[in-house]
Amino acid sequence: MSDLPKSIRINEEGPREGFQIEKGPIATARKIELIDALSKTGITHMQIVSFVNPKRVPGMADAEDVVKGISPRSGVTYTGLWLNEKGLDRALATGRLHIEGRIQLCPSEKFLMRNQNKTHAQQVEMNHRVLDTSKERGLEVRRASVMAAFGCNFEGDIAPSRVVDMVDEIFAIAAQHDVKIEIVSLADTMAWATPASIKRVVGAVRERYPQLKLSLHLHDTRGMGIANAYAGLEMGVDRYDASVAGLGGCPFAGHKAAAGNVCTEDLVFMCEEMGIDTGVELESLIECAQLAEDIVGHPLPGAVMHGGNLAKYRAGTH
Amino acid sequence: MSDLPKSIRINEEGPREGFQIEKGPIATARKIELIDALSKTGITHMQIVSFVNPKRVPGMADAEDVVKGISPRSGVTYTGLWLNEKGLDRALATGRLHIEGRIQLCPSEKFLMRNQNKTHAQQVEMNHRVLDTSKERGLEVRRASVMAAFGCNFEGDIAPSRVVDMVDEIFAIAAQHDVKIEIVSLADTMAWATPASIKRVVGAVRERYPQLKLSLHLHDTRGMGIANAYAGLEMGVDRYDASVAGLGGCPFAGHKAAAGNVCTEDLVFMCEEMGIDTGVELESLIECAQLAEDIVGHPLPGAVMHGGNLAKYRAGTH
Repeated sequence: MSDLPKSIRINEEGPREGFQIEKGPIATARKIELIDALSKTGITHMQIVSFVNPKRVPGMADAEDVVKGISPRSGVTYTGLWLNEKGLDRALATGRLHIEGRIQLCPSEKFLMRNQNKTHAQQVEMNHRVLDTSKERGLEVRRASVMAAFGCNFEGDIAPSRVVDMVDEIFAIAAQHDVKIEIVSLADTMAWATPASIKRVVGAVRERYPQLKLSLHLHDTRGMGIANAYAGLEMGVDRYDASVAGLGGCPFAGHKAAAGNVCTEDLVFMCEEMGIDTGVELESLIECAQLAEDIVGHPLPGAVMHGGNLAKYRAGTH
Repeated sequence: MSDLPKSIRINEEGPREGFQIEKGPIATARKIELIDALSKTGITHMQIVSFVNPKRVPGMADAEDVVKGISPRSGVTYTGLWLNEKGLDRALATGRLHIEGRIQLCPSEKFLMRNQNKTHAQQVEMNHRVLDTSKERGLEVRRASVMAAFGCNFEGDIAPSRVVDMVDEIFAIAAQHDVKIEIVSLADTMAWATPASIKRVVGAVRERYPQLKLSLHLHDTRGMGIANAYAGLEMGVDRYDASVAGLGGCPFAGHKAAAGNVCTEDLVFMCEEMGIDTGVELESLIECAQLAEDIVGHPLPGAVMHGGNLAKYRAGTH
């Protein structure tokens, strides 16, 4: 187990993933309540809203009000998701978010077509425009991501070599803009990954780019989230997106597609129990998960929030 | 990943774990329906009932009727749980179950006291009686188990060396009866294990007993079940108890203690996707999981049963 990292960094995406998908409506004040509670747990990076078309995603129509309403905590980086220049301008206009440019590619052109109505060439073209815009607005560009890096509902299995091709292309795009990509996120967008494929893909990318920092974005649709995160830890990956209480997913509500990211407090539990520092106070995070459940008004898939921390048993205070 | 086994053997415990804990009442015919459906999936070992005090576990009062009602399938071994000689006699009287003697120890005397009202010495004594009785009845004894092998709500952390001590004691007890223990099951009774502790404990036992076959019984109360099974696979462990649909657990029903075994179809999914043969037909098993949910009348925690198999996406038939 010598490859396990000593510490990991969690990017909390629950407020964005969760409130985006809930049928709601959820009051803006309650969204703010959860974000402010999360900011006190030791979490240092949080994606709190998305700036998308309010007609398509009504749950995010109040994105500006949410950002305006939070009490930013020193040491916590708040960000928002944007998909095009209009969203980017909205995000920048809040004046309170850390916004960067980024490169995003997808090895499955079929998914790209379905999801963004773009060919691969159009996606590459859009990345060039994003980098131009980022330069104009003075935004830093250090990150890139590969969607559907472990498989795709429309294209099937994705060979690790195709993910490496995507990373090659990311660096080629970056080079044309004098941008240095430091972190690449590998996203299991449609929950095809297993621990074995996590190791294959991470291994293939790392073999070609030993210095590149990798991050994992793991959906839990097939219950592999925590096992996949463990496989990532075994490969030394120390950056994970996660979602408090498993927000974003509710396999029990009947909407199958709606499975969220790996659950933050379950990930924190596993890491801390294995001696990997997350910087997060588990008991406070469990309280946030319970708050999230109260806010959405239905059970959420997190396990440790229901099963309980072990600290109280060790202390004999249960 | 060279230590991953080529195949594993699953012992399905859903009918016993699940129907024991449901508030029910569940009709005997429906229990039989699930057991018969499971027997057609490729599962070869199934614990279908427990012979316990019907006043304490009303959901198992119909154990004899369930056993009488099933259509035993060739190649499937059906068994039942018993905790004392009275239960053993009931199990044997059915004439349709494969019943063995076994040794069971627990490194946490506090749990033993709570769970069975016994000291460690009394537990050892009982094991001697069970072996005497097994000999009288002509029962095979090949198996032993260590409960709470990864931690205990009442005693806290359990050192791997204490689990090794228990295995030493198991062999010492067996030697006095000329019995040869071939398989030891390590049970994470109260869901304290993480992938790291699975590796520590399995490693410690294996270091001392390299030829001993190990089996894992993993509860999913804290969401670690599949990750712990993966850690077991990495250690070459090829025997797992599991529960279809995660029967036995419903973290969403508010009863926290009620978390079942690792979910059978999620385990099958992970293994088959990683090239490990389970002998189980996943799609049929998913149908059983959906049947189980229909029978208990509330959502069950399985993920793949809600998220779906990947085969249909690969075949383009989704």
